[in-house]
Amino acid sequence: MTAILVLHGPNLNLLGTREPGIYGNLTLGEINRRLEALGAELGLEVRAQQSNIEGELVNALQDAPGWAGGVLLNAAAYTHTSVALRDAISAITIPVVEVHLTNIFAREPFRHVSLIAPVCAGSICGFGLHSYLLGLRALAEIIKIEQ
Amino acid sequence: MTAILVLHGPNLNLLGTREPGIYGNLTLGEINRRLEALGAELGLEVRAQQSNIEGELVNALQDAPGWAGGVLLNAAAYTHTSVALRDAISAITIPVVEVHLTNIFAREPFRHVSLIAPVCAGSICGFGLHSYLLGLRALAEIIKIEQ
Amino acid sequence: MTAILVLHGPNLNLLGTREPGIYGNLTLGEINRRLEALGAELGLEVRAQQSNIEGELVNALQDAPGWAGGVLLNAAAYTHTSVALRDAISAITIPVVEVHLTNIFAREPFRHVSLIAPVCAGSICGFGLHSYLLGLRALAEIIKIEQ
Amino acid sequence: MTAILVLHGPNLNLLGTREPGIYGNLTLGEINRRLEALGAELGLEVRAQQSNIEGELVNALQDAPGWAGGVLLNAAAYTHTSVALRDAISAITIPVVEVHLTNIFAREPFRHVSLIAPVCAGSICGFGLHSYLLGLRALAEIIKIEQ
Amino acid sequence: MTAILVLHGPNLNLLGTREPGIYGNLTLGEINRRLEALGAELGLEVRAQQSNIEGELVNALQDAPGWAGGVLLNAAAYTHTSVALRDAISAITIPVVEVHLTNIFAREPFRHVSLIAPVCAGSICGFGLHSYLLGLRALAEIIKIEQ
Amino acid sequence: MTAILVLHGPNLNLLGTREPGIYGNLTLGEINRRLEALGAELGLEVRAQQSNIEGELVNALQDAPGWAGGVLLNAAAYTHTSVALRDAISAITIPVVEVHLTNIFAREPFRHVSLIAPVCAGSICGFGLHSYLLGLRALAEIIKIEQ
Amino acid sequence: MTAILVLHGPNLNLLGTREPGIYGNLTLGEINRRLEALGAELGLEVRAQQSNIEGELVNALQDAPGWAGGVLLNAAAYTHTSVALRDAISAITIPVVEVHLTNIFAREPFRHVSLIAPVCAGSICGFGLHSYLLGLRALAEIIKIEQ
Amino acid sequence: MTAILVLHGPNLNLLGTREPGIYGNLTLGEINRRLEALGAELGLEVRAQQSNIEGELVNALQDAPGWAGGVLLNAAAYTHTSVALRDAISAITIPVVEVHLTNIFAREPFRHVSLIAPVCAGSICGFGLHSYLLGLRALAEIIKIEQ
Amino acid sequence: MTAILVLHGPNLNLLGTREPGIYGNLTLGEINRRLEALGAELGLEVRAQQSNIEGELVNALQDAPGWAGGVLLNAAAYTHTSVALRDAISAITIPVVEVHLTNIFAREPFRHVSLIAPVCAGSICGFGLHSYLLGLRALAEIIKIEQ
Amino acid sequence: MTAILVLHGPNLNLLGTREPGIYGNLTLGEINRRLEALGAELGLEVRAQQSNIEGELVNALQDAPGWAGGVLLNAAAYTHTSVALRDAISAITIPVVEVHLTNIFAREPFRHVSLIAPVCAGSICGFGLHSYLLGLRALAEIIKIEQ
Amino acid sequence: MTAILVLHGPNLNLLGTREPGIYGNLTLGEINRRLEALGAELGLEVRAQQSNIEGELVNALQDAPGWAGGVLLNAAAYTHTSVALRDAISAITIPVVEVHLTNIFAREPFRHVSLIAPVCAGSICGFGLHSYLLGLRALAEIIKIEQ
Amino acid sequence: MTAILVLHGPNLNLLGTREPGIYGNLTLGEINRRLEALGAELGLEVRAQQSNIEGELVNALQDAPGWAGGVLLNAAAYTHTSVALRDAISAITIPVVEVHLTNIFAREPFRHVSLIAPVCAGSICGFGLHSYLLGLRALAEIIKIEQ
Repeated sequence: MTAILVLHGPNLNLLGTREPGIYGNLTLGEINRRLEALGAELGLEVRAQQSNIEGELVNALQDAPGWAGGVLLNAAAYTHTSVALRDAISAITIPVVEVHLTNIFAREPFRHVSLIAPVCAGSICGFGLHSYLLGLRALAEIIKIEQ
Repeated sequence: MTAILVLHGPNLNLLGTREPGIYGNLTLGEINRRLEALGAELGLEVRAQQSNIEGELVNALQDAPGWAGGVLLNAAAYTHTSVALRDAISAITIPVVEVHLTNIFAREPFRHVSLIAPVCAGSICGFGLHSYLLGLRALAEIIKIEQ
Repeated sequence: MTAILVLHGPNLNLLGTREPGIYGNLTLGEINRRLEALGAELGLEVRAQQSNIEGELVNALQDAPGWAGGVLLNAAAYTHTSVALRDAISAITIPVVEVHLTNIFAREPFRHVSLIAPVCAGSICGFGLHSYLLGLRALAEIIKIEQ
Repeated sequence: MTAILVLHGPNLNLLGTREPGIYGNLTLGEINRRLEALGAELGLEVRAQQSNIEGELVNALQDAPGWAGGVLLNAAAYTHTSVALRDAISAITIPVVEVHLTNIFAREPFRHVSLIAPVCAGSICGFGLHSYLLGLRALAEIIKIEQ
Repeated sequence: MTAILVLHGPNLNLLGTREPGIYGNLTLGEINRRLEALGAELGLEVRAQQSNIEGELVNALQDAPGWAGGVLLNAAAYTHTSVALRDAISAITIPVVEVHLTNIFAREPFRHVSLIAPVCAGSICGFGLHSYLLGLRALAEIIKIEQ
Repeated sequence: MTAILVLHGPNLNLLGTREPGIYGNLTLGEINRRLEALGAELGLEVRAQQSNIEGELVNALQDAPGWAGGVLLNAAAYTHTSVALRDAISAITIPVVEVHLTNIFAREPFRHVSLIAPVCAGSICGFGLHSYLLGLRALAEIIKIEQ
Repeated sequence: MTAILVLHGPNLNLLGTREPGIYGNLTLGEINRRLEALGAELGLEVRAQQSNIEGELVNALQDAPGWAGGVLLNAAAYTHTSVALRDAISAITIPVVEVHLTNIFAREPFRHVSLIAPVCAGSICGFGLHSYLLGLRALAEIIKIEQ
Repeated sequence: MTAILVLHGPNLNLLGTREPGIYGNLTLGEINRRLEALGAELGLEVRAQQSNIEGELVNALQDAPGWAGGVLLNAAAYTHTSVALRDAISAITIPVVEVHLTNIFAREPFRHVSLIAPVCAGSICGFGLHSYLLGLRALAEIIKIEQ
Repeated sequence: MTAILVLHGPNLNLLGTREPGIYGNLTLGEINRRLEALGAELGLEVRAQQSNIEGELVNALQDAPGWAGGVLLNAAAYTHTSVALRDAISAITIPVVEVHLTNIFAREPFRHVSLIAPVCAGSICGFGLHSYLLGLRALAEIIKIEQ
Repeated sequence: MTAILVLHGPNLNLLGTREPGIYGNLTLGEINRRLEALGAELGLEVRAQQSNIEGELVNALQDAPGWAGGVLLNAAAYTHTSVALRDAISAITIPVVEVHLTNIFAREPFRHVSLIAPVCAGSICGFGLHSYLLGLRALAEIIKIEQ
Repeated sequence: MTAILVLHGPNLNLLGTREPGIYGNLTLGEINRRLEALGAELGLEVRAQQSNIEGELVNALQDAPGWAGGVLLNAAAYTHTSVALRDAISAITIPVVEVHLTNIFAREPFRHVSLIAPVCAGSICGFGLHSYLLGLRALAEIIKIEQ
Repeated sequence: MTAILVLHGPNLNLLGTREPGIYGNLTLGEINRRLEALGAELGLEVRAQQSNIEGELVNALQDAPGWAGGVLLNAAAYTHTSVALRDAISAITIPVVEVHLTNIFAREPFRHVSLIAPVCAGSICGFGLHSYLLGLRALAEIIKIEQ
C-alpha cells in the first residue's frame, strides 16, 4: 500500500477559526480525516504533517521519498515566496501535487504567482476541501501511470 | 439529471496529432467519451462542444444557463487573451471550472496568466485527461453544495 | 437622411440580465429603441447590430462606409484586446465614437486601457444608457461639422 | 433651479490663442456662454470658474456642494497629476463629470492616465466644445435620476 | 506540384483603399495574382484566403497540412494579440513564413511584438508586395531543403 | 516654551464631513484642540495651519524655523505627488514628523508611496486622531534629544 | 490587566552591537524594560519574545490571542519578505501595530515595501526606542476603543 | 531692448541657507544681480520672479509674452511633477530655456526626469550660478536667430 | 551597374565553425560568393565587408553612399545594442535592408529588440543564407522603385 | 589558528542525489572534507554546518564572530529571498564570502539576483566543489590583509 | 594657456549633410573653428578630435589629463549606451562637460537617458552650435574655480 | 604547457591611478606579473592583453582557441553592454572565466547585470587582485577536468 505525504504549510493549523469568510469552517483535522477515508478507498495510506516553519516543510519533503510515493502540498503563504520549497520539490523524484483551498487568482496580486507550480506535476485551487480530495485522486492516477 | 457543458477552445480539435510531446496521444473524442462515462457515474449528462472562434465560445457560454447546471471549460489559447470569455463567465450564474491538460505554469511566460481564472470557481491544470475528469468531479461537488 | 451604425460588442446581448449591479436593468432592445427615437429627433436613421465575434464586428465596421455616415461603437471586452477593431476603425473614413455603459476607469485595471480610443473621434463612458444617447449627439455634431 | 459649477483647470484661460492646431479657436468665454444657453434650456444655472492653481480648484470643489447640484470639470493638466483634486471629488457628495476638449488617448502617453476619472460619475473627451455641452446634458440626467 | 496557402488576416481585404499613405494602392487581388505568377515560376500552386475572424484563420491553418506544403501568413492585427494562431502554427508540421507589408518596427509600439514570430520559420517585413513575393521564395527554399 | 507647527494638507479642512467611513467624525478643530492640550502637557505650544494649496504649505514650512522647533505634517494628497514639499522639508533644519489618519498602505496603490517620508524624521499612520497625538510625542522626544 | 505581546524579529537580538551607526546603542533588553515600565503606567502587562525564525514568529502570533489583547510587532527583515506573517496577522483577531527603529523609507529600496503593513492597525517608524513606546501607546488606545 | 522673464520655482527663495552642501552659498538676490549685469551686457532687460505656488508660475508664464521676448526657467521641484507648467510653456510662443543649479542626473532618480524639458528650447544643468548665466546667453542667441 | 555594400557584423567571420547547431555550416566566404552570383543576375555589384568593431561598421555605412546604391546589413550582436549604427543608417540616404541568419524572435529575449529595424527599409530573418539572398532581391526592388 | 564557519543552506544536504545533472555527484560530506584539507594547508580550522531553516542560518551567522574569523556561505535558495540573512551578514563584522556550485546566471531568472551579494566581501559561482575551495582561499587572503 | 579637448562622438563627422532637418547645416569643421575662436577669447587652446569608435573615444579621454585642463564631450549615440565612456570620465580627474546639438529630451525615448551625465560636471543640450560654445564657457568657469 | 589568455577590458590600463578608493593602487602590470608567477606554479603560460575597444576584445577572444586553452576575462564596462563579447564567448569552445576586481553587486544598479556571465564557465568578483588569481586557479581546474 503506497503512502502519501499530505503537507500543510503556515497558518493552516488555524483552519476553522482563521478568516472563515475566506477559508470556511472546516478544521485541518477534518480535512485530514476526509483524506484518510478517500485514501483508504484509493489504496493509499495518508499521513499528514503541518508546520509554520519553511525549513521544516523542506525537511518533510526531503524525508518523503524514503517512505511515500507522492506528496500533496498546500504550501500556503510559502507558495509565493519560497525558492527553498521549490528546490526541495525539484530535488526529490516522487510526484508533488499543489493544492489551495481558495482560488488564489481571485485574491491579492501577490498570490497570483506560485514559485512552486512550475516544478509540481499539476495544480488545483478554489474548491476548498475538494481541492485536497481531487489532488489525492490526481496523485493516485500519476502513481498508477508511473508504475 | 443535471446537464454539464464541456467547452473546448481553439486547436483542441487537433488533440492526438498536435504536438504529442506536449499534449499526449489522446483525441478529443476519447476525452469526451471518458467524461460522459464519469458523468453517468456522477449523475451528470455531459455535452461537449469545441470551437476555434472566440465569439462562438462566448455564444456557447451564454446559451449554457438555459440547459446546463455548470460548465467545464478548457479555453486553451483564449485563456490568456480573452476578456470576452471572462465577461461571459461573469455574466452567467452557473459555476464554471477551468481546466488545462498541461501545467501552464511550466511553459512560456505568456501562458502563466489566465484572464478567466479570477471569475471561475476554481482551476485544475497539469494532469492531462485527468484535469478534465477531476474538473467534472469538482463541478459535481459545487452543484451539490449549491442545491 | 444620414444613417448611423450602432455597433454593440460581446455579451451586450445579455444586458438586463448580465450583472445588473454593474450594468443595470435596461435591455439592448430598449437602448436601441431610445437611440432610434433620439436619431429621429436629430435627423439620423439608427441601425443597430450586435455580435460576440471580433471578426464580425470588423466586418460590420468595413461595411458601414457603404451606407452610414458614422458609427457609435461599444466594443465591450474587445475594447481592451482588439488591434483588429482598431485597424478597421483606422481603415474606414467615417467618424467612430466610442461609448461604454460603465465608468471603465473605476473597474479592473485591464479595463483602463482602450486600444481603440486613440483612433476614435472621442470617447464617452459611465452614464449607462445616456453614454449611447450622448454619443449619438456627438456623432450628429461631427457629421454636421464635416458637411 | 439647480446650479452647476463649471470648473476649468490650468491654461484653459488661454483658449483661442493656445495651440489652436490642438485646441481650436473658441475662447473660454464663448464656451461658457454656450453652456449657459444650454443650461437655461435644461433648467440649470451655469456658473463658471477658472484657475491655474491646483489648490484653488480644490477650494472651488469644496465650496460647490453649498450652492450647486453638480460639477462639470475640465481639470486639464491636473487631470494627470493631482491626487488632491481626486480627494476633493471623493469628499463632496454631488456628482462630478469629467470633460476634455481633445481626445487625451490620442496624445502623449502621460495624458492617457486620469487620476480623477475613477471618482467621477463619467468621462467625455475628444469633442471640443461639445465635450462640455454633452457633459452638461449628462449632469442634467444624473441629477434627474438622483432626485 | 506543391500547393501553398497564402493566408491574409483582418482588414487586408480593404487593401488599396485602406490608409493608402501607409499600405499603398495595391489591392489584395493584385497581390494574389502576383503570387500566383511567381508560384508558377517556382513550381508552386498558390491558393489565397482572407478572413477577419481569428478562429477562421485558425481553421485555415489546421486544414492546410491536408493539401498544402507550406503557409505564407500575413496575420495583420492578430500578429500582436493571437495566442490561438500561434498554437495553430505550432500544431501543424508544415513550415509557416510570416510577412508584413509595412515595417512593423517603425510603427506604434504595440506592433513591435509578434506573438507568432517565434514559431514561424522566419519573418519578412517592410517591402510591401515584395514582402509576400520574397516570403514565397523563402517557402520554396524551405520546402526544397526539407524534401 | 518651544512652539510646534501642525500643518494640515489639502481636504483636511473637510474632516468630520469628508468620507466619514474612511476618516471618522472628528473635525480638524477638535484635532487641533486635542493637540493643544497634549502640547501643554508636554511643554509645547501648538499652532495649526491648513491649506489646500501646495505652495502655501511650502511657504508655511519655510517660515517655521523662524518660530518653531519642529513640524507635525499631514501632507494628505500631496504626500504622494509633491517634490516641492520634500525639498522644503530638506531645506529647513528643524525636525518634521509625518502623520496620516488612515493606514495609507491598506488603501489604493498610489497612496503606498510617500515622497516626503525619506526626508522626515519618522512616520506614523493608521491611528486616526492618535496618529497626530503620537506624532507630537515623537517630536517632543526628538527635540529633547537634540537639545 | 490586559497583556501585550511585544514580538521582535530577526537580528534584533543583536541590538546595541549591530551596526550602531544605523540602529543605535540600546540593547533589546533595555527596550523591553522601557516597554514594561510604560506598560505598567498604561495598565498593560508587556511580555516580549524574539526569534530569528519566520515560522516561530508565526507561532507566537497564533498563540497571542489566547493570552494577549494586542501585539506590538517589529518584524525586521521579514517585514519585506513574509507572506506567512501577513497571513498570521490576518488570521488572528487582536490588533497588531507595526514598528521599526529606523525610517525604512530612507534606506534601501527593498525596505520601502512592507508586506504586513496593509493588515496591521497602523505603522510607526523612524523614532528608535520611541517607535516601540509610541506603538504601545497606540495599542493602548485601540484596545480602549474596542472595549 | 528685449525683456527676459527669469522665473524661479519652489524653495529657490531659500538659496544661500538651503542645503549649502548641495546648492552653495549664493542667494537668489545675488543670482538675479548677476543676471541683470549680464543682461545689460547682452542688451536684455532681466526681470526676476519667484513663487512656491505651481499655479502662480503658470500665471507668470502666461503673462510673459505680453512683455518679454523669452523665459529663463528654473522650475525646481515642479520640473519633475508639473504637467501644468509644461502646458503653459507649450501654450506661449516665446522661447523658454530650462536651467538647474545642480546636475539633476547625479541626484535621486525622481529628479532624472524633467516633464518640461521636451517643450523647452534647450536645457542646462550642473553649473550653479553659471547655469543661469549660460542660459541667458542661450536665450540671447535664440532671440537673435528668430529675429 | 549599381554597387551594393554587404556589411557583416561581429563574429560573423567565424561562420561555419561558430555554434553550427545554431548558425549552420556555411562560411562567410560562401555566403559572399552566393550573393555575388545573385547580384550578377540582378545587375548589382556586390562588395562585402566584415568587422567586429562597431565604429568600423559605422565608418563603412558612412562611406557607402559614395559608391553604393544600397546596403545589406547583418549587424549581428550590435543589432541589439548600437545606437551608433542606427544613427549612421539614418544619416545616409541610400536604403538599408536588415537581415539575420536565425529567427531572432525564437532566441533569448535580448535578441528580440532591434535598435536598427525602425530605420531600415525592411527586415528579414530566419532563413539562413536565404535571408541574405532575399535581402539582396529586396534591395534590388527598392532601388528599382526609387529610380 | 583561525577558525572558519562553512555554512550550507537549504537542500545542500541532498548533494550527490539531488539533480545530479545540475549539481554533480559529490556529497556535502566530501565537500567538507576537501575544505578541511585545504584549510589545514592554509592554516585555517574549518567547521561546517547545514540547515534548511532560514532562521537557523541567521543564528549560525550571529554566533560566528564569537569563534570564527570569517564565513564561507552557500545560502542556496535563500540567496534569492532572504533579507534576514543579508541583515545578519551586515550585523557581524567578520568577512563573509558567497559561493555557489552552479553558475546562477545561467539558470532561471529568479536565481540571477542575490540579496546577499551586496553585503558579502565577494562572490564566486559556477565551479562546483572548486567554488568552495576558491572561496576558502579568498577568505584566507582577506583575513591576512585585515590582520 | 590651458588646453581643452573637444571630443566628438560617432556620426558627428557627417554634420552638415546628416539629417539637416534635425542637425542643421553647420559642418564639424565650422563648429571647431567657432570653438577655437571663443577659446582664444577665453584664454583656452581648443583641440578637437572625432571618432566613430567607442574605444578610441575612451583612449582620447584617458590621454587628455596629460595635456588638457578639461573636456567638452558630445558623445552622440554612445551617450545612451556606453558604460566604458562613463568609466573613463570617472577615471580621469579633469572636468568633463556634456553637450548635445539637439534637445535629446524631445526625441526618441532611448535618447532621454544619458549614461554619462551623472559623472560629468554638467550638461547642455538643444542649442545647436551654441551648446558647444556655452559648454566651453562652462568649462572655463569650472577651471577658474578649481584653480 | 597550456597557454592562457588574460584579457583586460576598457579603462583597466589606468589601474593604480583610476579611482584608487574603488580599485586600489595595484597597476595592471603588477597584476599580470602576479598572474604569470601563479601560472608558472600551476603549469600555465599566461599572456595578457588589454584594449579599450570592444571589437578588439572580440578579435582577441576569436584568436585565443588557436593558441590558448582558456581565457581569464575582465570585460570591465563591456560586461554590462556587450552582446558582441557574449557571442564571441559562445562561439569559441575553450572555457572562459569572468573576473571583476570589485564587488559589482555593491555598486550602481547597471553594474548588477552581466551580459557575459551566462555563457562563461563561472564568475568571481570582489577580491581585487585575488579575483584574477582565483580565476586562474579555476581555469586550471576546468582544463584539468576537461583533459
